[in-house]
Amino acid sequence: VSKAWDRLLPTLEELRDISSAARLLAWDQAAMMPPKGAGTRAHAMATIEAIAHARLTDPNVGEALEELAEDQSLDDAQKAHVRVLRRDFERAIKVPPELVRAIAERTAHAYQAWTKARAASDFSILEPELTTLFDLKKQEADAIGWEEERYDSLLDQYEPGSTTVEIEAMFTELSGGLRPLADAILDAAREPPSFRHGDYDEDKQKSLCNWLASHLGFDADGGRLDTSPHPFTMPIGDGDVRQTTFTDRKALLSSIYAVIHETGHALYEQGLPGELVGLPAGRVPSLGMHESQSRLWENQVGRSRPFTNFLLPHLKEVFPEELGMVTPEEFHRGVNHPERTLIRIYADEVTYNLHVVLRFRLELAIFRDELEVADLPDAWDEAMLRTVGVQPEDDASGVLQDMHWSIGAMGYFPTYTIGTLYAAAFYRKADEDLGGLDDELRAGKTERLLDWLRTNIHSHAYLLPAPELARKVLGEPPGAGPFLEYLRAKYSDIYGMSL
Amino acid sequence: VSKAWDRLLPTLEELRDISSAARLLAWDQAAMMPPKGAGTRAHAMATIEAIAHARLTDPNVGEALEELAEDQSLDDAQKAHVRVLRRDFERAIKVPPELVRAIAERTAHAYQAWTKARAASDFSILEPELTTLFDLKKQEADAIGWEEERYDSLLDQYEPGSTTVEIEAMFTELSGGLRPLADAILDAAREPPSFRHGDYDEDKQKSLCNWLASHLGFDADGGRLDTSPHPFTMPIGDGDVRQTTFTDRKALLSSIYAVIHETGHALYEQGLPGELVGLPAGRVPSLGMHESQSRLWENQVGRSRPFTNFLLPHLKEVFPEELGMVTPEEFHRGVNHPERTLIRIYADEVTYNLHVVLRFRLELAIFRDELEVADLPDAWDEAMLRTVGVQPEDDASGVLQDMHWSIGAMGYFPTYTIGTLYAAAFYRKADEDLGGLDDELRAGKTERLLDWLRTNIHSHAYLLPAPELARKVLGEPPGAGPFLEYLRAKYSDIYGMSL
Repeated sequence: VSKAWDRLLPTLEELRDISSAARLLAWDQAAMMPPKGAGTRAHAMATIEAIAHARLTDPNVGEALEELAEDQSLDDAQKAHVRVLRRDFERAIKVPPELVRAIAERTAHAYQAWTKARAASDFSILEPELTTLFDLKKQEADAIGWEEERYDSLLDQYEPGSTTVEIEAMFTELSGGLRPLADAILDAAREPPSFRHGDYDEDKQKSLCNWLASHLGFDADGGRLDTSPHPFTMPIGDGDVRQTTFTDRKALLSSIYAVIHETGHALYEQGLPGELVGLPAGRVPSLGMHESQSRLWENQVGRSRPFTNFLLPHLKEVFPEELGMVTPEEFHRGVNHPERTLIRIYADEVTYNLHVVLRFRLELAIFRDELEVADLPDAWDEAMLRTVGVQPEDDASGVLQDMHWSIGAMGYFPTYTIGTLYAAAFYRKADEDLGGLDDELRAGKTERLLDWLRTNIHSHAYLLPAPELARKVLGEPPGAGPFLEYLRAKYSDIYGMSL
Repeated sequence: VSKAWDRLLPTLEELRDISSAARLLAWDQAAMMPPKGAGTRAHAMATIEAIAHARLTDPNVGEALEELAEDQSLDDAQKAHVRVLRRDFERAIKVPPELVRAIAERTAHAYQAWTKARAASDFSILEPELTTLFDLKKQEADAIGWEEERYDSLLDQYEPGSTTVEIEAMFTELSGGLRPLADAILDAAREPPSFRHGDYDEDKQKSLCNWLASHLGFDADGGRLDTSPHPFTMPIGDGDVRQTTFTDRKALLSSIYAVIHETGHALYEQGLPGELVGLPAGRVPSLGMHESQSRLWENQVGRSRPFTNFLLPHLKEVFPEELGMVTPEEFHRGVNHPERTLIRIYADEVTYNLHVVLRFRLELAIFRDELEVADLPDAWDEAMLRTVGVQPEDDASGVLQDMHWSIGAMGYFPTYTIGTLYAAAFYRKADEDLGGLDDELRAGKTERLLDWLRTNIHSHAYLLPAPELARKVLGEPPGAGPFLEYLRAKYSDIYGMSL
């Protein structure tokens, strides 16, 4: 038994509880809060965050960490908690309070400027704010420290254990293979099936979402499913994982695939070991790993031919008039219809990651001091034309479409693609291990798959960094291969061609 | 400008924010939380409460209060904040931490014992826990201190500024007048109209509740209306006041009058001046004053003949089959049907306060060391027969029906009746001041009444203690007279007799 651990534990539990309150404030803000409560909420969230920061950076925490670094009596979970806490602690103490404050203030201004700039489709409104914010983020990265290059420090916030060099190599492999493949697939694509746009009662969509989430294994006694303009998943604490979906009267597929995606996140959170949840290592190890679960359920499962075959009759029961005449083939094609689109969030599985790689390369160039913020619009438009094959009409449909940079979330974009690549690799491995997943999906059965994910991924929480966990699961470092093969197989089948 | 005030203000704002988080945790627990989140939530709430307690009892707060007590530069609102904060501070520091912990632990046990005891209808299961808890509450009262008698200290928690002597005198006047009046009314009562029990679609009830709340002035952009098993109102902060109602398929009136009652509370909260909300004096001055608003809307407005005449056609539109044949006279009689019931929460306007006075007298006797907890069941049954005129069948329908004592809420019961008496007096005064309220209610118009309440009560927040505010509004000390006259007039009219 470790005395330093016993001294630290009450602080860990306090941090867990404060964080749970902070998460509830955030969930409620997005899913429940009435509009006039916004001011009150902003104050409450800032205060709770300041309290959490003060607890985390208390000198007693630093002393306990010093002692525990050399404590041989800790078990594996305790060692992982200490490792993760040390990381959180150091990131928190290394950034001077003035810089923290400056970034918070500048972020608020930049976000305001972004909403204005996007409405006016004029990057110049955002440019000065964004220039300052990128500079502050560089200072932050330098304060935290890095070895190989500055972007590592940003990446480390969302993908601890991954390095820029590795990600860049993975993305180069990806885009090398993806661009010709995407061109071939897009050339083969025909008109989208008409059921993709219709008039679908939103209450019925909500009922369908509830059914689907439960069917895939979401435990409604240990969470909630609500609606919000931007779907998200938020773990409040052990036994309380909340997801949202959204509904669009005109587009049934949006809510269906939003709920499958978020259920993927929620199943991961519900699969974390209860005794670890809330403590430092009782969380998902990276955003990319989180995204691997949402993408796997949304795409490898939800957009597969066997699962769309299973799904369609259920949708027809609810919407007999709108979908009665749709064939399984049409439905599967409609669910997987690829398009050259300007907007990332509307992009399909084929082109989505081209959008992400573009953003990663641009932000990386800025942190390498190879690109000025002022030159972003031109660099963006040029890269869009070269990779996705379309030219933005204006700033709003180009460089201004995402809020990420204006809220200071530099280093975040790659997590989407890391998730995509992990998802394809994990699914292939699960199918190898289990065999016969297709037959099960055709019957809507996903229990064995979920079991495999629970055993191989969810139950490990953050006991290992994400890249180590991925290697452990796959038996090799994750790469772009499985994803490219997956796309090739899927679209060869859909368009009856050899890719 | 006061330097001590400027030093104190950030702490006040921090306390406001922490309290807002605590309220959201509590609201969510009752209205949204999935069952498996209960453990996580209990921890989070305890931690947030401990943080609030530590901030409130910080020695710096005590020092600032010392300085501010003699600070002549404060404006009236600041003086009120200082007065209320001093009260909160002293109540918080005078109780030793061990006693706080002992009460918290004992309460958890007593509440568990109460649920078991009630299920088994056996007071002896609760008796030892309740005996200890009453003893601890006596110690707490003594630690806080009191002048005339111990119960003052308990009362002061819910009704600051009221004394046991005053309440006892008011309640004696009330029960002296109410018992013969209730007997006369109950003798005149006929069979309840059959629409009181039916089959009312719950979604339609919810729509009706939303309409009613908005119609009475509830601002849905500054709050929410949800459902929960026990209706309640919770202010989260300025611009965010949440109420709940509940629905019972069999009883339309339950949800209708629950939502009118809670809207009364919510209108009060929404009428507090925004610049004060969250600071010490920016809240309602007592639970009785709060209850005066819910009772006034529920009874003086909602159960009045003109308002029931207004309401019925709206209900008929939603429930044409169930209510189509009900006459305005039947509806009004049904809404005001009196009965001798064993259970307080099912009691009508006539008998309700007899239930409350009974509880007040019993708990007062215990704090005066004139009654043992062990003797509660017999004392209860005897008092029920004498005052309400019915004999409990068992402990469950008698002494075990309410949770209040088992959760340590001694001194709480009188607030219900204080609210009732205030409500009748305020409504009479408003009608004198404004004239013609009946005609407006018949048209469903309540704007002038709400305006009067905003001006005379809501806008004052806690700048004055409740009894002072009541005297200021009424021009005289509040008593039982207006309520007794109100009942006499109402039931003389309903049963066509002279009471």
